[in-house]
Amino acid sequence: MPAVDLRAARAALLARTPLVHCLTNTVVQAITANALLAAGAAPAMVDAPEEAGDFAAVASAVLVNVGTVHARTAEAMRLAARSAGAAGTPWVLDPVAVGGLVYRTELATELVGLRPTVVRGNASEVMALAGAGGGGRGVDSTDSTDDAAKAAAELAARTGGVVAVSGEVDLVTDGRRTVRVGGGSPLLTRTTGAGCALGALVGAYVAATGDPLTGAVAAHAHVAVAAERAARVASGPGTFAPAWLDALDAVDGAALTAADVR
Amino acid sequence: MPAVDLRAARAALLARTPLVHCLTNTVVQAITANALLAAGAAPAMVDAPEEAGDFAAVASAVLVNVGTVHARTAEAMRLAARSAGAAGTPWVLDPVAVGGLVYRTELATELVGLRPTVVRGNASEVMALAGAGGGGRGVDSTDSTDDAAKAAAELAARTGGVVAVSGEVDLVTDGRRTVRVGGGSPLLTRTTGAGCALGALVGAYVAATGDPLTGAVAAHAHVAVAAERAARVASGPGTFAPAWLDALDAVDGAALTAADVR
Amino acid sequence: MPAVDLRAARAALLARTPLVHCLTNTVVQAITANALLAAGAAPAMVDAPEEAGDFAAVASAVLVNVGTVHARTAEAMRLAARSAGAAGTPWVLDPVAVGGLVYRTELATELVGLRPTVVRGNASEVMALAGAGGGGRGVDSTDSTDDAAKAAAELAARTGGVVAVSGEVDLVTDGRRTVRVGGGSPLLTRTTGAGCALGALVGAYVAATGDPLTGAVAAHAHVAVAAERAARVASGPGTFAPAWLDALDAVDGAALTAADVR
Repeated sequence: MPAVDLRAARAALLARTPLVHCLTNTVVQAITANALLAAGAAPAMVDAPEEAGDFAAVASAVLVNVGTVHARTAEAMRLAARSAGAAGTPWVLDPVAVGGLVYRTELATELVGLRPTVVRGNASEVMALAGAGGGGRGVDSTDSTDDAAKAAAELAARTGGVVAVSGEVDLVTDGRRTVRVGGGSPLLTRTTGAGCALGALVGAYVAATGDPLTGAVAAHAHVAVAAERAARVASGPGTFAPAWLDALDAVDGAALTAADVR
Repeated sequence: MPAVDLRAARAALLARTPLVHCLTNTVVQAITANALLAAGAAPAMVDAPEEAGDFAAVASAVLVNVGTVHARTAEAMRLAARSAGAAGTPWVLDPVAVGGLVYRTELATELVGLRPTVVRGNASEVMALAGAGGGGRGVDSTDSTDDAAKAAAELAARTGGVVAVSGEVDLVTDGRRTVRVGGGSPLLTRTTGAGCALGALVGAYVAATGDPLTGAVAAHAHVAVAAERAARVASGPGTFAPAWLDALDAVDGAALTAADVR
Repeated sequence: MPAVDLRAARAALLARTPLVHCLTNTVVQAITANALLAAGAAPAMVDAPEEAGDFAAVASAVLVNVGTVHARTAEAMRLAARSAGAAGTPWVLDPVAVGGLVYRTELATELVGLRPTVVRGNASEVMALAGAGGGGRGVDSTDSTDDAAKAAAELAARTGGVVAVSGEVDLVTDGRRTVRVGGGSPLLTRTTGAGCALGALVGAYVAATGDPLTGAVAAHAHVAVAAERAARVASGPGTFAPAWLDALDAVDGAALTAADVR
């Protein structure tokens, strides 16, 4: 595996407080903003077409998540992605539920053409976006991360960026190098928005480290280590969420190096 | 009262993991999704007109909640309700604050004409929707559940479905049979979205059991029993919400049979 | 300083349960509603242009927060602000991130012309709105509360209302009298929506007390005292939020008089 200095990544995020401009679904806006704040980044959720392009140009990173996309926010996403691309600002595409729904699949395909710095999704979403799978089961993946490895590499070659596939073991690849991140907790999948917040943290870490592969791996490791801590103190899926935010704050560089990264 | 097998209902929900398509207000999307996940169902919150009809046809159940409805989401609701009706998919109408506001009252009346499988609201909302009351006090009911019993029965006769009236004691009726569910906790009324999440759980249980009356009663019982547990460990309305989600997860079939159902 | 009877303000809010109509950003709707409920007020989040004007006329207070404003909600905000003004209903303007973004800055300037009862923002936002500063750094202030004192007084003179500047020490002024509120906790700034919820609580307290200066001070004091309590029991920024809601509920009139108000 490529050397990923997780300790340095954590220090860089805390030193730079990257401002992540999130065009994301309305279900997860609050936990996404809170996860960024807990980790040491700053959120902003500007999704009007009148503002999204201008704001993307001044943000440290941009997240485009199509979970509840519709005409207005689709237009804001296009403007933000183009503006980020023009400014050299890293941006992350989260193709929620792409595959089964025509409207968002066409939008996500168009956005892939704008070459996102990182694509982050589950196996079914990444396979659908790469043209390798069917999709159509909402937000849950019915494929495994390894099923998606080839699709992820092809998609990364197409965008020139990084593709991250979340699952029991996460897979992060730039098409040549591949890193796997294990650990975490099944309670993450029972917390609405944990995966979406991960997409925002990927943006924060890529901005902080300046390297898409390192940033994506660090974000996945941070989420996993924090989830393990939270699972030890939570009484169920409800108390897991605040405990996970506490742990995102508490995990320092040393704790992060204990992540299962291979 | 009709025999409602709560233990079998809980088992059916856990066995089938129903996917509930929620067109709901933006205030409560997160707690609604988390309540579904905690109980063992799966949420999806697709509310673009371009997608809502297609998605409703593949979901296990659909929730239509008019809490923050506007032109775009009203159109998505119409499409989803029609699509659910055509596919034989159960759908739940939650007429939030209907009665006082003309726009949503007209929309909810139109949606009643599409014959929702279950209508779930408070006494004032159900009375307004049945044409029996005034309304106009926002989301709080100023009428008691028993005041609404006649209106609920009439509304059920009109839709051919079930009507559930939430209150200190909940009332669930199909126009011929009536079941009451007691218990719960006053802290539910101090948690934004607990009632709205109940509407989504009704959809999940109706899909799992295949019976609107059984499903509606089981959802109300599950929410009430979980609230009682949560109230015992919470320190106030803030810690009640995560504790309630924990309890929605922890309540099994045996625990559910302790519900005050008559 | 002017005498502010915090004990009477708390009693008035609990006695009157003011209904606060919130046109606010989608990120913070849930915590805003929960904060109102915890404190003893009632929330409603009607933001369709078809309904916002009518609802504002019957609410006890109106909050207009431009955090995620776009064309439809901007129109609803104009209608609600005009309706509140015509009805003599107090309304609060929260100019989130005004200064750096042209669209919302123009909207907020237009809304200032409708004379909000209270403007509540951070120092950068208030300075930008008063025409005294630059802005453009998202939701975080880069100016101190004292930097904004002159701008706040000028803005208050222009609206004929009260201006509240949140910061380490909050400043509340009607242009002649100025009150400062200290205390609180840094964890408030790591909780998405705590400041936005404060804006809603200002509306609730102004409606309950009938006095904009008293109401604004009481809301800031309530938030600060509750934050201090919550910080003592929280394990981090995640568990702080539910603990803060618990404390908003638990703080009574006697506890409120311990606030650092000068």
